[in-house]
Amino acid sequence: MDITEFVTNSIGRWKSQRSVHHLAFGHFEAVESEIEISALASDDPIAIDLCKDYGIDPSAVLSPFRMSWEGHSDWDDSETVSGSCLLIPIPDRDRPNCGKLLRDRGYAETIPAAGDYYLTEDGTFVLVTAYDRAAAEEKIWFVNPNVRYRVSSIKTSAGTGVVTASFSSEIRQKS
Amino acid sequence: MDITEFVTNSIGRWKSQRSVHHLAFGHFEAVESEIEISALASDDPIAIDLCKDYGIDPSAVLSPFRMSWEGHSDWDDSETVSGSCLLIPIPDRDRPNCGKLLRDRGYAETIPAAGDYYLTEDGTFVLVTAYDRAAAEEKIWFVNPNVRYRVSSIKTSAGTGVVTASFSSEIRQKS
Repeated sequence: MDITEFVTNSIGRWKSQRSVHHLAFGHFEAVESEIEISALASDDPIAIDLCKDYGIDPSAVLSPFRMSWEGHSDWDDSETVSGSCLLIPIPDRDRPNCGKLLRDRGYAETIPAAGDYYLTEDGTFVLVTAYDRAAAEEKIWFVNPNVRYRVSSIKTSAGTGVVTASFSSEIRQKS
Repeated sequence: MDITEFVTNSIGRWKSQRSVHHLAFGHFEAVESEIEISALASDDPIAIDLCKDYGIDPSAVLSPFRMSWEGHSDWDDSETVSGSCLLIPIPDRDRPNCGKLLRDRGYAETIPAAGDYYLTEDGTFVLVTAYDRAAAEEKIWFVNPNVRYRVSSIKTSAGTGVVTASFSSEIRQKS
């Protein structure tokens, strides 16, 4: 599987159940949300601008997409968490299954972030992002075309201790 | 990573947080447990007996181990769930990273079960077990030597629909 196929398979509307394990306290958090993933043109002006911010040649962009979410957590039932981010894969020239993923905001901190991704032989997308005070690792894979899993870790910036572990099961919604 | 290294890394006492997503109902279940994984000798009489039950040459056994657990679910706080099973890897002669895993009882149904496992290039242990009325798929990997993740799916026996998805984060306990 290459990044284009992975993004194509991800396009759509998903119902997500996400469990967050706060490891130090042994606490469980449950988040329910709707996620929408939509394709962008490679020459979308926002994608080109973000490349320029990172000093990357915009012609290297492949299969950029937008992800929006809206949901709520059992930690605070009264508040709806929603957001949206732009994601831009930049495959390596020599190793097409590896590359950089630019985002106009990250998960762990709400600032732009560039992560390193690779796709494993069995079709798992692995993303590692270093932030100022934390590091995030994500694995995403399809159990079948309509079920996607996502496992994330937030680690200390040294990359040793795991602070939170989370798991999302995402079910494709009929559109 | 081969199966011996994977089992060796797993030996110990683990504190587990497990989240189960019941997909049809969008329900979250939280399970807390202690897991103990201990090595067995390759010529342990119980391991040899289980091989005979499956008509497998006991000399093919590599790194058998026992897993015991004790915990409780938020579905029924009053009940403690505990159990123990014997797990016996039988690596393929020609492909050492693949093989069968015999168990004296399964997860999805409490009868003996033989699953097929393989280890991916990035050190993920993948186990697929077919039961009479269900199929189970598990992925287990180490985030670091003291943090282990386990993602399981229970599917319909046809292997298409996912009934439950679960995620365990397991933290090694000082012994």
